[in-house]
Amino acid sequence: MEIEDVRRVLIVGAGIMGRQIGLQCAMHGYNVTLYDISLDALEAATAQIEAYATHLVAWGRLTQQEADAALARITTTNHADEAAAEADLLSESVPEDAELKGRVFAQFNKLCPSHAIFTTNTSHLAPSILADKTGRPAQFAALHFHQHVWEANVVDIAPHPGTSNDTVELLRAFAERIGQIPIVLSKESPGYVFNAMLNALIGAALTLAANGIASVEDIDRAWTGVTKMLIGPFVMLDVVGLDLAWQIRDCLAKIGDDPQLQSHADFLRQYVDKGWLGVKSGRGFYSYASPT
Amino acid sequence: MEIEDVRRVLIVGAGIMGRQIGLQCAMHGYNVTLYDISLDALEAATAQIEAYATHLVAWGRLTQQEADAALARITTTNHADEAAAEADLLSESVPEDAELKGRVFAQFNKLCPSHAIFTTNTSHLAPSILADKTGRPAQFAALHFHQHVWEANVVDIAPHPGTSNDTVELLRAFAERIGQIPIVLSKESPGYVFNAMLNALIGAALTLAANGIASVEDIDRAWTGVTKMLIGPFVMLDVVGLDLAWQIRDCLAKIGDDPQLQSHADFLRQYVDKGWLGVKSGRGFYSYASPT
Repeated sequence: MEIEDVRRVLIVGAGIMGRQIGLQCAMHGYNVTLYDISLDALEAATAQIEAYATHLVAWGRLTQQEADAALARITTTNHADEAAAEADLLSESVPEDAELKGRVFAQFNKLCPSHAIFTTNTSHLAPSILADKTGRPAQFAALHFHQHVWEANVVDIAPHPGTSNDTVELLRAFAERIGQIPIVLSKESPGYVFNAMLNALIGAALTLAANGIASVEDIDRAWTGVTKMLIGPFVMLDVVGLDLAWQIRDCLAKIGDDPQLQSHADFLRQYVDKGWLGVKSGRGFYSYASPT
Repeated sequence: MEIEDVRRVLIVGAGIMGRQIGLQCAMHGYNVTLYDISLDALEAATAQIEAYATHLVAWGRLTQQEADAALARITTTNHADEAAAEADLLSESVPEDAELKGRVFAQFNKLCPSHAIFTTNTSHLAPSILADKTGRPAQFAALHFHQHVWEANVVDIAPHPGTSNDTVELLRAFAERIGQIPIVLSKESPGYVFNAMLNALIGAALTLAANGIASVEDIDRAWTGVTKMLIGPFVMLDVVGLDLAWQIRDCLAKIGDDPQLQSHADFLRQYVDKGWLGVKSGRGFYSYASPT
């Protein structure tokens, strides 16, 4: 398949990332089918995608006509067969559960055209453990987006050992067509590229805080003061959610060999135990006026 | 001593950091004495400080009158006794050699007024190993700046176990008076706050590159694409100098327990061996039109 033959993108999973990826593709002229098993999720997705589009118009990133055209290119469905029928490229963003993702890929392998490229947006799983489930391993790789997709416009393209070069090159061209900077990895690697660096930065921040070297506020101030980034590592954690951040580190500490991970998890746990989960609960390391 | 009693700042060592710290203090109304053993260094310092001031005027950060007033507040000398006579606060930026720094502090302890606060701008040495040499350990702490001082306006204030609270509070007030964000550490800690995080980020970038996961250019693009920082980790290394970056990691690898450090050092070594030292040599990971 050539890049010109990619016309319809199937987004599987209408959560935050699926919504953003779908809108980004539609903004760049692709027909998008947004699939989820839950009609409620699809309804919420439609509302949020419209809200994103309104914001992008308000920020001058899209004209009203462009936003309307993008929204018109998106259809939603909870019928897998209907969703799959004309898909040229599938982007999967279902929850981070290898079993579930495997089932979803196996299901869509039976329903999608044989030429369709399959991609996963997983943050934490290796593409290689999903490859066989897709039934088309040569046409499968990770295509990993960052939030918000139109702003943090970087995608990791991570092949597993069986991914064909054609698939990698098609995904590189696709990424560019949807306004993303493609980062092609030579092979799969935990955290891909950006998240591997971000996790190291956040780890160092957690070490400083857990050891009482400086306050959370001062650690953030040191980072933003020098780099002029708008947010520091503890605001980033509040955005991610402290429950998720704790869970990942607690889980990795049990299987890994980094002694710092448990102290990071324990530090986060103090906040989680108080119900301070970050932006979504209105309080984490900081307080937020409008919980999301 | 109260903050109002600090009128003259003595900068010991007229290298890059001493020059910037001196100008920053002068820009905020302090009388500054810039001391170096080398008259050539002082001459170069004067020229560079004037160039910095010209840039700050061009960027609209200072008016011409403010710049002229700041420059008029700076005097240079290679006579230690003359330099020390009226010093209320000493900022040391001599090369990163514990022996040398110890000798310098012992020398100026004899020459400076007894009320003067002593600070070190060391990046790599613990203040505690220098404290006794100052002869006034309660009046001594690290006061660590970042480049360029007026832009990356964050200072670490790191006490050693014998630093008095009064000294910490005076340094906090002083930092604010010279337009800096004070980051007060509870105790000394390697890399202070910002550099500890930056080193973790750069370490993750070096791991990705040394393992061939992605290209240097793509690793930088992933970082700048998501964060919108102007430079990524490999440009930062080019600015630091690849010889210095290699040296530090090679040295730490031999005494430390992080197996990644040697692979980072070896990766940097390939560039150093070709004479690619970064911005200063016109080529490092990238090429630069105007070597500094």
